[in-house]
Amino acid sequence: MKMEFIKPMDIEARSMEIIEENLKGVEMPEKQRLVLKRVIHTTADFDYVENLKFSDGAVETALDALNQGAHIVTDTNMAYSGIHKSSLHKLGGEAHCFMSDPDVAAKAKELGVTRATVSMDKACELGDNVIFAIGNAPTALIRLDELIRSGKIAPKLIIGVPVGFVNVVESKELIMQGSTPYIVARGRKGGSNVAAAICNALLYQLYR
Amino acid sequence: MKMEFIKPMDIEARSMEIIEENLKGVEMPEKQRLVLKRVIHTTADFDYVENLKFSDGAVETALDALNQGAHIVTDTNMAYSGIHKSSLHKLGGEAHCFMSDPDVAAKAKELGVTRATVSMDKACELGDNVIFAIGNAPTALIRLDELIRSGKIAPKLIIGVPVGFVNVVESKELIMQGSTPYIVARGRKGGSNVAAAICNALLYQLYR
Repeated sequence: MKMEFIKPMDIEARSMEIIEENLKGVEMPEKQRLVLKRVIHTTADFDYVENLKFSDGAVETALDALNQGAHIVTDTNMAYSGIHKSSLHKLGGEAHCFMSDPDVAAKAKELGVTRATVSMDKACELGDNVIFAIGNAPTALIRLDELIRSGKIAPKLIIGVPVGFVNVVESKELIMQGSTPYIVARGRKGGSNVAAAICNALLYQLYR
Repeated sequence: MKMEFIKPMDIEARSMEIIEENLKGVEMPEKQRLVLKRVIHTTADFDYVENLKFSDGAVETALDALNQGAHIVTDTNMAYSGIHKSSLHKLGGEAHCFMSDPDVAAKAKELGVTRATVSMDKACELGDNVIFAIGNAPTALIRLDELIRSGKIAPKLIIGVPVGFVNVVESKELIMQGSTPYIVARGRKGGSNVAAAICNALLYQLYR
């Protein structure tokens, strides 16, 4: 068994080289490619070459929003933990996860809905310079779609990458049929790690 | 596009049913199966049916350790964030991630090694009732193997599920050749989410 001897700071660069070798023949705009490569770096799963879908200009819109201090709202504490907050703060932005807020839990119980649903309602208070990074709850995407259609919020980007087996596939298709810029992992796969990786792939294009 | 109408609290149960339907014909001890199912629940990736490897009695040993208040040490803040700490605390245990500790960063820089390597050294201070949940850094597994061989620590379980392209595959094989009970995701796949899912699959067998 042979290990590569490699300096800590060089591991990521070497990983990205290996990923790039495996992407030979895959054509896409460079700004999208940086997102795809970071998702594969996080998952070692090349299914995302097929699954990861970008609406036209989504990455550019998101980069503009981040440059203007966009908020990032996520539906899990794991994704919140994985977002590179010092890059975000440097750009004037802030990350939020409302899932553990006592008022969110209380309201969800009262209404018989998920905390993710109520979290999206709460996010409307942040205004419109918001990027949503949804890595867990299809109900978050379903509620976002309702809030957008009723004019309560107009986010700059929806990162729609919940993982799972119940309403996950359908909730992502819903977002892809809407008018909001999106990055979606079509199908069942995704997760908090993927949500955070996409946020960081955007952030690192601006500041690291 | 048809969504299932399902109560929030029933989503996980329905997901597990769907996973079980997809596992028809897969035979394994129930305690391991609960771990596998939670990993698939977290990733929607059935590759883990083949990839996830358990040493004999690993789950039983880990459950005994957790019942006796084992520490869980992880190599990422994302995994730390995902571990169900209230279950762990109820059993008398504690979760740790030393990656952001200033002394760890300083020592890593001084020695030219990863912070994950130094984190493993620091974990030796916790004694032997420790479960390691490694979701990111192969260097953590390599250092653990050295510490175990030199008698500095004797952990109850190594959850070896780093993800990636540089030394990841090899570091997992190293753990599988050692004498410490293990749960390993063989190959390139894994991640912080998988590490946390395995911890929770163990914890939920004892307390939820």
